[in-house]
Amino acid sequence: MRIDLNSDLGESFGRWELGDDTALLGIVTSANVACGFHAGDPTVLRETCERAAERGVAIGAQVGYRDLAGFGRRFIDVPPRELTNDVLYQLGALEAMARVAGERVRYVKPHGALYNAIVHHEDQAAAVAEAVARYDAALPVLGLPGSVWLHRAEQAGLRTVREAFADRAYTPEGTLVSRRERGAVLHDPDEIAERCLRMVRGEPVEAVDGTPIRIEADSLCVHGDSPGAVRIAQAVADRLRGAGVQITPFTAA
Amino acid sequence: MRIDLNSDLGESFGRWELGDDTALLGIVTSANVACGFHAGDPTVLRETCERAAERGVAIGAQVGYRDLAGFGRRFIDVPPRELTNDVLYQLGALEAMARVAGERVRYVKPHGALYNAIVHHEDQAAAVAEAVARYDAALPVLGLPGSVWLHRAEQAGLRTVREAFADRAYTPEGTLVSRRERGAVLHDPDEIAERCLRMVRGEPVEAVDGTPIRIEADSLCVHGDSPGAVRIAQAVADRLRGAGVQITPFTAA
Amino acid sequence: MRIDLNSDLGESFGRWELGDDTALLGIVTSANVACGFHAGDPTVLRETCERAAERGVAIGAQVGYRDLAGFGRRFIDVPPRELTNDVLYQLGALEAMARVAGERVRYVKPHGALYNAIVHHEDQAAAVAEAVARYDAALPVLGLPGSVWLHRAEQAGLRTVREAFADRAYTPEGTLVSRRERGAVLHDPDEIAERCLRMVRGEPVEAVDGTPIRIEADSLCVHGDSPGAVRIAQAVADRLRGAGVQITPFTAA
Amino acid sequence: MRIDLNSDLGESFGRWELGDDTALLGIVTSANVACGFHAGDPTVLRETCERAAERGVAIGAQVGYRDLAGFGRRFIDVPPRELTNDVLYQLGALEAMARVAGERVRYVKPHGALYNAIVHHEDQAAAVAEAVARYDAALPVLGLPGSVWLHRAEQAGLRTVREAFADRAYTPEGTLVSRRERGAVLHDPDEIAERCLRMVRGEPVEAVDGTPIRIEADSLCVHGDSPGAVRIAQAVADRLRGAGVQITPFTAA
Repeated sequence: MRIDLNSDLGESFGRWELGDDTALLGIVTSANVACGFHAGDPTVLRETCERAAERGVAIGAQVGYRDLAGFGRRFIDVPPRELTNDVLYQLGALEAMARVAGERVRYVKPHGALYNAIVHHEDQAAAVAEAVARYDAALPVLGLPGSVWLHRAEQAGLRTVREAFADRAYTPEGTLVSRRERGAVLHDPDEIAERCLRMVRGEPVEAVDGTPIRIEADSLCVHGDSPGAVRIAQAVADRLRGAGVQITPFTAA
Repeated sequence: MRIDLNSDLGESFGRWELGDDTALLGIVTSANVACGFHAGDPTVLRETCERAAERGVAIGAQVGYRDLAGFGRRFIDVPPRELTNDVLYQLGALEAMARVAGERVRYVKPHGALYNAIVHHEDQAAAVAEAVARYDAALPVLGLPGSVWLHRAEQAGLRTVREAFADRAYTPEGTLVSRRERGAVLHDPDEIAERCLRMVRGEPVEAVDGTPIRIEADSLCVHGDSPGAVRIAQAVADRLRGAGVQITPFTAA
Repeated sequence: MRIDLNSDLGESFGRWELGDDTALLGIVTSANVACGFHAGDPTVLRETCERAAERGVAIGAQVGYRDLAGFGRRFIDVPPRELTNDVLYQLGALEAMARVAGERVRYVKPHGALYNAIVHHEDQAAAVAEAVARYDAALPVLGLPGSVWLHRAEQAGLRTVREAFADRAYTPEGTLVSRRERGAVLHDPDEIAERCLRMVRGEPVEAVDGTPIRIEADSLCVHGDSPGAVRIAQAVADRLRGAGVQITPFTAA
Repeated sequence: MRIDLNSDLGESFGRWELGDDTALLGIVTSANVACGFHAGDPTVLRETCERAAERGVAIGAQVGYRDLAGFGRRFIDVPPRELTNDVLYQLGALEAMARVAGERVRYVKPHGALYNAIVHHEDQAAAVAEAVARYDAALPVLGLPGSVWLHRAEQAGLRTVREAFADRAYTPEGTLVSRRERGAVLHDPDEIAERCLRMVRGEPVEAVDGTPIRIEADSLCVHGDSPGAVRIAQAVADRLRGAGVQITPFTAA
């Protein structure tokens, strides 16, 4: 049994620091590095790539809307052609940083409102898929199982990687419970770690209403933007390793 | 006899258009494409790269300070390490656009206040040179003959390309007359074209005070941000070709 | 008979120029001045306010989404509280420029995608209305007759001013034909001028399908972002004046 | 005896938080609120103004260069006319937030690299002074005693307020020791508090080389961007009050 752990990194900007990247780089196997449009300045990007490379953590491009003020968390109705080009620009910018770190961009994961939009938004999903396919058709992409995004990426000939969220509640249909609803986010490290192990083993977990559901995933997303989040990430990694699960980048597969 | 003609392109941004890129792409052999920090959005960059590639015009990275409001024309005291990373980011971003156009970034030319600063500013000159050397030590760089910038670039092992300005007056020492002084900019297409031909032939031209000086250059910079500028660029190209000079990208050498 | 003519001004930014503000300030009675979020830098704003004040043209705040790259023409799902504050910020910034020009901000007109969104979007409409009411409940607001925006503004106690578009086709229901459809924009200056005169007289004009409809308006919007647009604006003003209509700021009423 | 305590507030931006504003608002009497150019978004500005107003803390405009990526800490060679307008824009924007909080902007203090530049830079000092004088000639300004900035502000008819830095070492000439030199920043709360009390009493303190010097100040600047900084600010306030010094806004004088 093997699984990848991914997390958002490189989200500081200038004077503003965010997230415990040092701690996370000791836990995860894939780093979704911000590309400067919603977070991350060039110096942050380069340092994050260098530290990821040193630790053997795979570098992924966390592409987002051009929206520093909103941290990429507000839907923007970007025309598809512009969105394709915005993604290309971000991919290239991060690639330069990965290159000087002796590495390469290994995968792509959309961020925030873009991630959520392309679960359903056909044009924007196709636009992002086109950017990746044009840039390097060998780059795998991360996304929500069943999303329009992964469907469009497949159609564009890309390898798709299904991800599950360690600390989020699911509906009986297998989609995420909205953050606006009660119980959307889980907080107990032990419960979350146990739940992740069940997912990896292919065993059912409980949906928000108690229904047992199966969440198939190639990668688990953990967070690092609070001390509590780092503890959860560590608990997940410890529980999985303790049960004999190999934590390894999906890009190594 | 052969010479390169270079010009700034891709400087539109969103709704705002600037420069007659279509006309210039029919005249010059090297396109200094803006990289998004002082001008140029991802869609403009991509279209400029695609059109340059179609016309066989070499794509260069016109890197600048992060300053859309000032169009990169205001000196910013960026610490060297940050400047290196800002340049790397821009190089990678433009590379992505060149790549989807079936091309590559072929050279680097700093823009505006950065260009002027590194004529003298040791730390910023070294920072830009380091960025290029780290990114791809085979990339040639354009600059003012005798500048700290070209000196630092040579030290970093880069190929340096000397450029002259078609429409600018020179001091007896061979430096540019400041734009704030009278007579700094030349306007007569015939006079400018003749002057360019003399430079290419290695013949002396008149400095602003009448002193004959020799300007050695591998590339001539022409502009396209006004109808008059385009006429001058065309006059220069016509005069050179009429005299048997081959206009060809320096990157082909 | 009297009518106001309004137009978007102050939309240049740094090196990038847009619109023939000089020509328009000789034609219109109300200037919708950009506030720096979608267009307009502080120097452009100040100069526009000073020139408007000299000509006796009323200064209005053309507030928009924070989106220079998209010129405020892309919907952004800004949470209402943030939108209220973004509008307040823009109002205050423009007020400073109006103040040093010896004037004041006299009205508010949302721009681009924000204008279109709040025709229907309840939360964003309420958020903009709240900003204006909080800032200065005596400020009138411009908008589309029948829009949620004007309705919410009324509820907030604001004076609402109905505007019609000189060069746009209308549906039989009195809404604008989408720019994506054929015939959405009118081009013939004489036809447009005649149509505007009929609107001002309260006479029916033809909808896009030929149906006669009445468009009630206190202000007519004209454009200045092309030589053709300026000719149309002038034709409208000439035709109205020739027919004895007084062109005067609605703020003077 | 009376003194003002001032501190930088409202420097968070979007997702990024900075400084313990809540703690500082319980300590200081004057809040230098960022205006959105180097830090602070509209929502942060409004909340900071509202909380300052509730606590009776005077709201000042902390104007800076347009440089989010550099947090306003990098000198930018902004032409004076543009700088005047950038300052006016920021003043107006913050005024709107103060207004909806039932307050007004009470003073102006330049930030970071702008603060340092106008200690010597004649043109930029005059440009900032002109902005304040044009906006409201009754607004006092904070600055370093002996600076070109305060001199120019006086010439422009503005009331000038001298400030001293609680936690910074001084040269024998009474200027600040550069942050790049050893011992530039003091760390011991008791020592700093005692030193502040001596300044307020008009007694000499030790310069970095041991020379006794007198620092005359109407306001003491304290910081809040780390837990240690907040402890120092509290120690200063406690020591002053314990010695019978009245801590009160200079704007109340």
